[in-house]
Amino acid sequence: MLENIRVVLVNTSHPGNIGGAARAMKNMGLSRLVLVDPLDFPSHEADARASGASDVLEGAQVVGTLEEALVGCNLVLGTSARDRRIPWPLLDPRECGQKSVEEAGQGGQIALVFGREYAGLTNEELQRCHYHVHIPSNPDFSSLNLAAAVQVLSYEVRMAWLAAEGQPSKVEKQEVNSVRSADLATADEMESYFGHLEQTLVAIGFLNPEQPKHLMARLRRLYGRSSVNRSEMSILRGILTETQKVARGDAHKRKD
Amino acid sequence: MLENIRVVLVNTSHPGNIGGAARAMKNMGLSRLVLVDPLDFPSHEADARASGASDVLEGAQVVGTLEEALVGCNLVLGTSARDRRIPWPLLDPRECGQKSVEEAGQGGQIALVFGREYAGLTNEELQRCHYHVHIPSNPDFSSLNLAAAVQVLSYEVRMAWLAAEGQPSKVEKQEVNSVRSADLATADEMESYFGHLEQTLVAIGFLNPEQPKHLMARLRRLYGRSSVNRSEMSILRGILTETQKVARGDAHKRKD
Repeated sequence: MLENIRVVLVNTSHPGNIGGAARAMKNMGLSRLVLVDPLDFPSHEADARASGASDVLEGAQVVGTLEEALVGCNLVLGTSARDRRIPWPLLDPRECGQKSVEEAGQGGQIALVFGREYAGLTNEELQRCHYHVHIPSNPDFSSLNLAAAVQVLSYEVRMAWLAAEGQPSKVEKQEVNSVRSADLATADEMESYFGHLEQTLVAIGFLNPEQPKHLMARLRRLYGRSSVNRSEMSILRGILTETQKVARGDAHKRKD
Repeated sequence: MLENIRVVLVNTSHPGNIGGAARAMKNMGLSRLVLVDPLDFPSHEADARASGASDVLEGAQVVGTLEEALVGCNLVLGTSARDRRIPWPLLDPRECGQKSVEEAGQGGQIALVFGREYAGLTNEELQRCHYHVHIPSNPDFSSLNLAAAVQVLSYEVRMAWLAAEGQPSKVEKQEVNSVRSADLATADEMESYFGHLEQTLVAIGFLNPEQPKHLMARLRRLYGRSSVNRSEMSILRGILTETQKVARGDAHKRKD
């Protein structure tokens, strides 16, 4: 479905930006690059910045006009930094990604159009677009590098595509964030840990049973919110057991 | 609030990437750049790629180690491309932007940490992070250009910031549940705790320095996700200090 989404660069001056755009595209799973009247292409600088994305550069279609670049497109989205005289339907990058993926998923051909490094797209070119896309930026320094702008929109396309495919946006194969519930120490294991911890703190003289203050409550709150899993629990218990041995004087001791 | 969010680049090889990162940051309203042991800085190439963001480069702090870069940070987010042996709490860029803005809004200091162009962050560096951030990418071509990665995360920070500015009540109310970010132990305090913990585990014979396995990594992960606040930290440190005294045999011992 991503092959239905092409990136169109109009009148690019710096070949390094073409290479950077190709790399950004390929990183995000896009492959169709169309260059409208580039100043300097092919070029070593483009190849260098493309890194491993030379296949995208080699497959790039070079055309003379924006019209040619847009042949067959059902949806044309043009990046625009500036306020325009004529108000136009405007999307932010996230909406742009969602709209592109939605249309591509229905078989549409989509073009994401990027203008010149210094001057952007002309009003005439912008009027060929169904929507304008504005990347939110610092009003005092709003002009993104071309390859960086391609990176942002391509990233949002990928995020929308992953969501549409039902794939997670991160590699969540392991028990990572939310440790799986079944792996968490149970309430009774936690209780038994707190009992062991309290004994140990008394044994090393840190907790005075006559004046316990709120020490155990504070430690319960800390470990209670930490979602301790079972393998961590066994480490924590192991530490207490060794500490108790040392406190009894019957354990391995360092000589220092 | 965005001034609480710093971008940390570790061991960057190509000065052009430093310039590109500075431009991406300024475009998105970020200004604090910290460079850990850069290969070539300051440099004309960095200035050229920074375009109008030379103020970010001039204000950049250059330090020798990641620890120095993280001094005072309450939340450290490290970009990671690769699968790791030890799973770590993982965020996608959107979650990273939201979390950074949420914590910064509560007065926290945040670091977004980016690794070397070819090798990323080392396991040791990644273990200093509270969360890892993975930019979703084409599995066959997953490594983004450094400045492009900075662009994506900075963009998501700006999107989250704009959303928060539009609805300030959301950010303000969250401190009710969670500990306020400014009360959290900072990265350097956590490091110093982990150092103390490691010494103590060696002293009681629980950790064999010859065969450390992944013990410290597991403990870092546990405490790293627990949002330890300062008063809890002083309890944890107190426990270690008493344990060490007992291990040296010079402390109060129970007679049992």
